[in-house]
Amino acid sequence: MTAAEHLLCQIRPHVGAIAATPQAMAQEWRSIAPDQQQQLTLAPCAATTPARTRSTAKMLPRFDPGVMETYLDDMREMKARVHELFRQHPDLLPNVEEGLSKEEHRALVRRSLKVILQAGYSPLDLLARDPRKYFYLGECLSMVDLSLMVKSGVQYSLWGGSVLNLGSEAHRRRYFDDIAQFRLPGCFAMTELKHGSNVAALQTEAVLDVLTDEWVVHTPDEGAIKWWIGNAAEDGRAATVFARLKVPDPNGGSKLVDHGVHAFVVPLRDESGNLLPGVEIRDCGYKVGLNGIDNGAIRFTHVRVPRGNLLDRFASVDKSGRYSSPLTSQARRFAATLGELTGGRVGLTAGSVGVLKGAVTIAVRYAALRQQFGPPDSPEVAVLDYQSTQVRLMPLVATAYGLHFAKCLLVEKYVDMKRTREPKLVEEAALSTCREVCGGHGYAAVNRLGALRSDHDIFQTFEGDNTVLLQQVSAMLLKEYRQQFSGAPLTATYHYLRAALLGALPNNPLVTHDTEPRHLRDPAFLSKALEYRTARMLFTLSLRLRKHGPRLGAFHAWNKCLSHVLDLANAYVESVVYKGAPVVGSLHLT
Amino acid sequence: MTAAEHLLCQIRPHVGAIAATPQAMAQEWRSIAPDQQQQLTLAPCAATTPARTRSTAKMLPRFDPGVMETYLDDMREMKARVHELFRQHPDLLPNVEEGLSKEEHRALVRRSLKVILQAGYSPLDLLARDPRKYFYLGECLSMVDLSLMVKSGVQYSLWGGSVLNLGSEAHRRRYFDDIAQFRLPGCFAMTELKHGSNVAALQTEAVLDVLTDEWVVHTPDEGAIKWWIGNAAEDGRAATVFARLKVPDPNGGSKLVDHGVHAFVVPLRDESGNLLPGVEIRDCGYKVGLNGIDNGAIRFTHVRVPRGNLLDRFASVDKSGRYSSPLTSQARRFAATLGELTGGRVGLTAGSVGVLKGAVTIAVRYAALRQQFGPPDSPEVAVLDYQSTQVRLMPLVATAYGLHFAKCLLVEKYVDMKRTREPKLVEEAALSTCREVCGGHGYAAVNRLGALRSDHDIFQTFEGDNTVLLQQVSAMLLKEYRQQFSGAPLTATYHYLRAALLGALPNNPLVTHDTEPRHLRDPAFLSKALEYRTARMLFTLSLRLRKHGPRLGAFHAWNKCLSHVLDLANAYVESVVYKGAPVVGSLHLT
Repeated sequence: MTAAEHLLCQIRPHVGAIAATPQAMAQEWRSIAPDQQQQLTLAPCAATTPARTRSTAKMLPRFDPGVMETYLDDMREMKARVHELFRQHPDLLPNVEEGLSKEEHRALVRRSLKVILQAGYSPLDLLARDPRKYFYLGECLSMVDLSLMVKSGVQYSLWGGSVLNLGSEAHRRRYFDDIAQFRLPGCFAMTELKHGSNVAALQTEAVLDVLTDEWVVHTPDEGAIKWWIGNAAEDGRAATVFARLKVPDPNGGSKLVDHGVHAFVVPLRDESGNLLPGVEIRDCGYKVGLNGIDNGAIRFTHVRVPRGNLLDRFASVDKSGRYSSPLTSQARRFAATLGELTGGRVGLTAGSVGVLKGAVTIAVRYAALRQQFGPPDSPEVAVLDYQSTQVRLMPLVATAYGLHFAKCLLVEKYVDMKRTREPKLVEEAALSTCREVCGGHGYAAVNRLGALRSDHDIFQTFEGDNTVLLQQVSAMLLKEYRQQFSGAPLTATYHYLRAALLGALPNNPLVTHDTEPRHLRDPAFLSKALEYRTARMLFTLSLRLRKHGPRLGAFHAWNKCLSHVLDLANAYVESVVYKGAPVVGSLHLT
Repeated sequence: MTAAEHLLCQIRPHVGAIAATPQAMAQEWRSIAPDQQQQLTLAPCAATTPARTRSTAKMLPRFDPGVMETYLDDMREMKARVHELFRQHPDLLPNVEEGLSKEEHRALVRRSLKVILQAGYSPLDLLARDPRKYFYLGECLSMVDLSLMVKSGVQYSLWGGSVLNLGSEAHRRRYFDDIAQFRLPGCFAMTELKHGSNVAALQTEAVLDVLTDEWVVHTPDEGAIKWWIGNAAEDGRAATVFARLKVPDPNGGSKLVDHGVHAFVVPLRDESGNLLPGVEIRDCGYKVGLNGIDNGAIRFTHVRVPRGNLLDRFASVDKSGRYSSPLTSQARRFAATLGELTGGRVGLTAGSVGVLKGAVTIAVRYAALRQQFGPPDSPEVAVLDYQSTQVRLMPLVATAYGLHFAKCLLVEKYVDMKRTREPKLVEEAALSTCREVCGGHGYAAVNRLGALRSDHDIFQTFEGDNTVLLQQVSAMLLKEYRQQFSGAPLTATYHYLRAALLGALPNNPLVTHDTEPRHLRDPAFLSKALEYRTARMLFTLSLRLRKHGPRLGAFHAWNKCLSHVLDLANAYVESVVYKGAPVVGSLHLT
């Protein structure tokens, strides 16, 4: 039992944290024998308490769990308060009784959102003034009900955030309080049936009618129907709609000029919840998980909104239809617009990390308590003491720690980005943040539990297929690489080799053949190894792209190297995750 | 588009097979816009039809899909009939409308079972007389609703099969028709709260009361409550209960003699569905999937059943309490008993293969039709044409074919085993069948879709954690190995080396460094490579166990090598799967 005991002590901070969550408590409540609940659910544990206590004493952790807990989580009080709130409203925990219809689960999530507001937490306020707390709140909510965390994200981060970040001060004054108080539930209408990851190819259009000073928002074909839009099926009274901005040709030509994808506020329903003219919405129905969110599909038929409904931080259009922007190209405006939306991605990362912590704790605790088989004439052995269980669970525990720090790093970067609120800086930061959020990719390999897994499933494709996000990471790395080593293929190779010789590029740390534990566990070695892998893969990918590009064209050359591209991105993400911890602070272990 | 087109042609047999299933049809029906269903769901396809048709003509498959289809599936007619049956009862397809409560889903599955019987298919009849058809029916049902397939398995294979295979002719006469017609729904009550994989440690007891000629079935403590028992929460009127058989000491001692785990028929409810005295049942509640099955927990308090309710094929007890068995040891009786239950495992494999075929087809078809991004000024590219998608999907397509053949092999072995119905032979065959069923393990790595995945999830631990089953496989291999090369450590090594030199053991086929495609694709080479891996791992595992055994004892030595043990089993399973195809027949491709 030694190994299991030892581990139980080491994960104590998390066990403690999770055991106090409503999630864990609901699990206990769900016991099928309410009157004997305690005995039944704790039976495997109780039977072994004496032996366990004895060896626990011998296996105290080699560090102070309290220090560790503070180090991991400096906003613990907020978590305790939020979870206490839900303990006082056990009727709001969806897993107390399952088999809710989607309508019932949605109603429950709606009530929960109001409870949070009534308790004095205004997520939109936090997002605007103290993003660290906003993301932390999201992580807390993810352990209550992932639908709640996502619904909150749709309302405050996507709908509220798009108005705040893409609009002007006038938009903020007009909408802020209503969105913050959930008096104006809204949507983020970007994805279309035929256009998901490829946002630049969206087909919904907003054409300026100069005579009436209005935008005419229209869905040109079925492929352009807005799809999977959260908050749309029941609650949404308005939406930020992403559409191609089209104005009359200033040179008097008969064709409209297409300025690419921009964001517009479009009302959907009146105060009684009736759909407005030209707006057609259908419920997306049951999903694998997250049925507390009312996803819907929206079709616009010549819907008219005032010219002022263009969210005009990065571009504006005057009464005559003249288009102007502080950013010089369509590509830059597009990047800046998407960059402003990274808050949603940071929020998803926080939610994912919360789910992973919860799932790992449940699994490890079960494995430490569940016993099966054993030596002849001895008590059965804890499942956690089997090598096969350790090999499966320990990497997940390590991943939870690693991604916790990566998430902290990401939140700090987001906070920095917001502090230096300036279009060009935002534009630069966009891809850089987006590439790091791919740390979430690690979850694809994680064994999660029941509803946690079903609910969390979509996190793998939220914000676009990870395959696409990872390609953005590699593209960014290649761009930096080219800037550093520009020139013809041979020159670049020469520069690379010279840099390697001079120590500017990491050398292969494996060739030393040093297999001492002291060496292999040395953080400097691990860091070097990860860096070397990234650098080497970047170098070789660059050579391959140069080789295939001239013959195949950029698109097909890229596709030919796609596995290489994705491996590079994953390698880079892992090195970022590895480096996450030291940024947060330093841990004084006793 | 070449790659996608090509693949579409190659998988046509499966696309055809699945497109005709109710599963696929229900997917179409679930369109959220019923009036525009066709256009919406098929939009991504319709838009590209012209180009697609053109290149499809160029890329016809290099074999006759009709021949392939017959080769893969020689009972196609039955599948067509069963699926036609459900097309006529669209109200029985659970995914027409989701959000069913567990009670509604259970009622639906109950109705489906009756529809199958009314259409003239009696699963229990097939199981007894033509097992190939029984398992094929299970695969067909798995594509309709996995709950239906599992409920059918509980009633006919577990409850019916245990009575048929563990009981005498008298039991068969008494119960067969009522079970076959679902007039007597029943359970298979093996697993207990604290005893899952470790069946030999079950604690429920059946003590003979010689005075009344009855067994007294009793749950001694909460850990021994029968748990997760299918058919128990609502339908079960009786159960095959696994319990320790205890009789008075024939030598007159005061203590009872424990003969180990045996099976007893125990009535649970009367004809009106009321629980019988001493039987306490609770509903296990909502599960991740398979909510069409009414799993329950059962507690017995001194429940009396006639002595004849012992299923006595492998052991019987007379009026005086004298125990007798044709099998000489408790271990052999236990193995023979479990061996008779392998039908359930074969059925799960058939269901898993059905799910995998369905899931792979859905995913490949979607990837072939869904387009995103593309070269400048060209149509978007099918997602399937991206290397990253191919790398993810193609191994799954290959796995579906591989496991299809492995399943056929397994069914044939089961049929053979049943033909030679003799206790000793059955005992030998038990472990050998059980180790091969682990082919199902391959699914753990499979990307499945929504409900398919949630429903199928439990297949990874049905019949015990795969980790345990895999250990049985390795134990069997080690036993064979020891028989072949018995002797002291050095002698065994000598024998191994000599056998390798003489060609009796496979040599490492990789040392040739031959990387020609002709060589690498040669089935003989692949087969040798897989064999070599298994042999080598078996040899090294054996050495390690010999080394650690004397110091640690058998149990801890085994645990120390557990990763090795599991890798060996997986290696062996893969070589069995690889060799599955030729057994079924030979394919004449045109």
